[in-house]
Amino acid sequence: MSEEKENIQFQLTNELIGQVEELIAIKSDKELKSLLDEFHYADIAEILDELNLEEAVYVIKLLDSETTSDILMELDEDNREKVLRNLSAKEIAEEIEELDTDDAADIIAELPEKRQQEVISQIEDEAHKAEITELLAYDEDTAGGLMAKELVKVYDTWTVAGCLRRIRGQAEEVTRVHSVYVVNKQGKLVGRLSLKDLIVAKSEKKIADIYISSVDFVNVHDDVEDVARVMAKYDLEAIPVVDENQILLGRITIDDIVDVIKEEAEKDYQLAAGISQDVEADDSVWKLTKARLPWLLIGMFGGLGAAGIIEQFNDHMGAFVVLLSFVPLIQATAGNVGVQSSAIVVQGLANNSIGGNIIKRLLKEALLGLVNGFAIACIGLLVTHFVFNTSYMVSVTISIALVAVILMAALVGTFIPIFLDKRGIDPAVATGPFITTSNDLFGILIYFLIAKIMLGF
Amino acid sequence: MSEEKENIQFQLTNELIGQVEELIAIKSDKELKSLLDEFHYADIAEILDELNLEEAVYVIKLLDSETTSDILMELDEDNREKVLRNLSAKEIAEEIEELDTDDAADIIAELPEKRQQEVISQIEDEAHKAEITELLAYDEDTAGGLMAKELVKVYDTWTVAGCLRRIRGQAEEVTRVHSVYVVNKQGKLVGRLSLKDLIVAKSEKKIADIYISSVDFVNVHDDVEDVARVMAKYDLEAIPVVDENQILLGRITIDDIVDVIKEEAEKDYQLAAGISQDVEADDSVWKLTKARLPWLLIGMFGGLGAAGIIEQFNDHMGAFVVLLSFVPLIQATAGNVGVQSSAIVVQGLANNSIGGNIIKRLLKEALLGLVNGFAIACIGLLVTHFVFNTSYMVSVTISIALVAVILMAALVGTFIPIFLDKRGIDPAVATGPFITTSNDLFGILIYFLIAKIMLGF
Repeated sequence: MSEEKENIQFQLTNELIGQVEELIAIKSDKELKSLLDEFHYADIAEILDELNLEEAVYVIKLLDSETTSDILMELDEDNREKVLRNLSAKEIAEEIEELDTDDAADIIAELPEKRQQEVISQIEDEAHKAEITELLAYDEDTAGGLMAKELVKVYDTWTVAGCLRRIRGQAEEVTRVHSVYVVNKQGKLVGRLSLKDLIVAKSEKKIADIYISSVDFVNVHDDVEDVARVMAKYDLEAIPVVDENQILLGRITIDDIVDVIKEEAEKDYQLAAGISQDVEADDSVWKLTKARLPWLLIGMFGGLGAAGIIEQFNDHMGAFVVLLSFVPLIQATAGNVGVQSSAIVVQGLANNSIGGNIIKRLLKEALLGLVNGFAIACIGLLVTHFVFNTSYMVSVTISIALVAVILMAALVGTFIPIFLDKRGIDPAVATGPFITTSNDLFGILIYFLIAKIMLGF
Repeated sequence: MSEEKENIQFQLTNELIGQVEELIAIKSDKELKSLLDEFHYADIAEILDELNLEEAVYVIKLLDSETTSDILMELDEDNREKVLRNLSAKEIAEEIEELDTDDAADIIAELPEKRQQEVISQIEDEAHKAEITELLAYDEDTAGGLMAKELVKVYDTWTVAGCLRRIRGQAEEVTRVHSVYVVNKQGKLVGRLSLKDLIVAKSEKKIADIYISSVDFVNVHDDVEDVARVMAKYDLEAIPVVDENQILLGRITIDDIVDVIKEEAEKDYQLAAGISQDVEADDSVWKLTKARLPWLLIGMFGGLGAAGIIEQFNDHMGAFVVLLSFVPLIQATAGNVGVQSSAIVVQGLANNSIGGNIIKRLLKEALLGLVNGFAIACIGLLVTHFVFNTSYMVSVTISIALVAVILMAALVGTFIPIFLDKRGIDPAVATGPFITTSNDLFGILIYFLIAKIMLGF
């Protein structure tokens, strides 16, 4: 018990990952188990996120379900989906049995419809099964979709002594007891008590005489964002959830709200940067393209619209003036790509979810830039040539410039935040106008250099 | 005790504010007190944020310090500063006595240096005074700056029964008991216990036999962002803070971390939108200008740089071509202003801190746009005329266009998010490329229309 304590900052190193991979390769189960036993499940999840699917499934099957159920909850969503596809309905049901009802329902909700029924039918604990089924019925964006059924509930007719006795039973089920909720005979929420209040009170007192009747609560259909706002505003650590008749249905704890707040903030940030869907820096190029290309297209048609406006005012269309008309297109594209790239890197750095290899990250951004750039350039070629009637050479020039500018903007937008972070400067300062402005300049320079080479004016 | 419960969603209405103002005007203290007594302190703070300073101070002096100390903590920072300036050192000290050490230290840290000493010397509770003074020594961005001294601490040599007895004493001081921290004779943190563990354990057991030795903790000098990351990752609701020698110094609770996470997210979001400093939609035009103008200037010099690049490639400078060279300037300015305006409105909407009056909000943005626009236009006039040698009329055209475009972008950036929010659409979708693109188009149209009027080409 007197062992030296270490600071809890867990460091995910390449050595550690290599060591785990090595132990999996030689199937050294006992050593692997004792190595992983040292770590918190959230840390094991970080390790598993770095392994390939086969290795991750191997570890999940090796460890006991009490640990692996928690690990599953912490895994990256995409990885969890893949791992679950490699487990049988029976195996998933075993994981589910170990989880609190809210987490269990979340995991099941992620499964394909048919799989959901198979897994639910394999859950042995009937009470747990019924509660999970109840939770699955609520919309995931409502209080019902976030709440857990686990809570400590006492009737107002009980005595303090009787209460403490029964709480001992209920509390075994509940990881953390924030508040003891007091209900009347009909199950309606009438008040609350803290464990502290119970400990301090005389044991022969009735609950009805000591409970606190002012109790905050939310309705099961309230929006999670409203719940988050209320809990943050009133500094609540848990809030009971009731139905229209004030019947106590469950409770929401602050750790789930922290996740809601973080996800909301990330969503807003990504939307502001022109990234739809919930994507992370580690997602596939295809998924990232789907999230980013639509916004680039909006920006592109804005740029083309601007060129159209400029044309309306022009009465002498030389090649140079035609090129100038498309400056807004180049600029908007460079700006949008730069902000997208930097926003996703900044967020990845803030979440600690970006691995150390800067070259690998830049190569990925380059690939992403080429994919997006090629799509944008093709549309650009067609629209400029057929709608704006620019010469073939000018259209090709604009298209090549678009690819080059997107590539450049993506690399600058990725490199600068990582560079700043390594120097200990908050990478968020490099997003927004800073990135946009430098990309404007580089973009226009690249555009006219390519035009000079292609058109030789 | 059987009164009907209402949902906790507090609605700040103009009627309510009017009612409070009325009661203050006629000095109807008793009625005012009984009206405000119905509300949570966080709600009263929201009401006070809407009153003028004199009225707010009146309410603070009217209510007892147990409530007002909590209200003060929830007030908007600028308003708190003003209210505190209107209280004597003695009055502030009385508020401080009611607060937990972490909140108390935060309030004192906001005061001017000289005032800090006066207030501290007026605190009567010597232990409280010493603890606050200790906390003031830590950097506000470290665990030490965030922690509270209030916690429940037991020695490993105690018995469960002795423990429970003494906890009753300590717990009176601590609003929420998350964990009971176990220390050895030297005060070193060796483990933890939950209240649940204590209740479940046999009363004659020694703490040393039942405590859990795996306890997460942070060092007093750790960065708050790291603490936030750790607490979110491991789903902790409180974490003990120790010094280099593992001596238990304090604890950080999740409600403070929620604030850190929200502030961090807001800061990143605002930086991405080109807004430095921590500003809110309700801040003064002057404060908002200070936070926004520097980024607009960066964008402006980017646009001017782009014009310089375009000029390098040009061999025949007609008036129209000269105007075209400055398209990047117009575009960058419109884009930056639009993103700034929309980001601050979106964040205000997310925090529920934007009052309902859309016309008032638009007028404020218009004023802000005029101030920023005038500054940008003056610089634009000088730089285009003297550095780019454009004719006087062209320089004036560009300057007028800059003011018009900034005004337009600010209004569009403000109006669209508010409009979407009223329709029940997430206003965050209107930030980023969406706003930028529409502002590009409007901006270029306005630019050439003004040029047509001014230069008549």
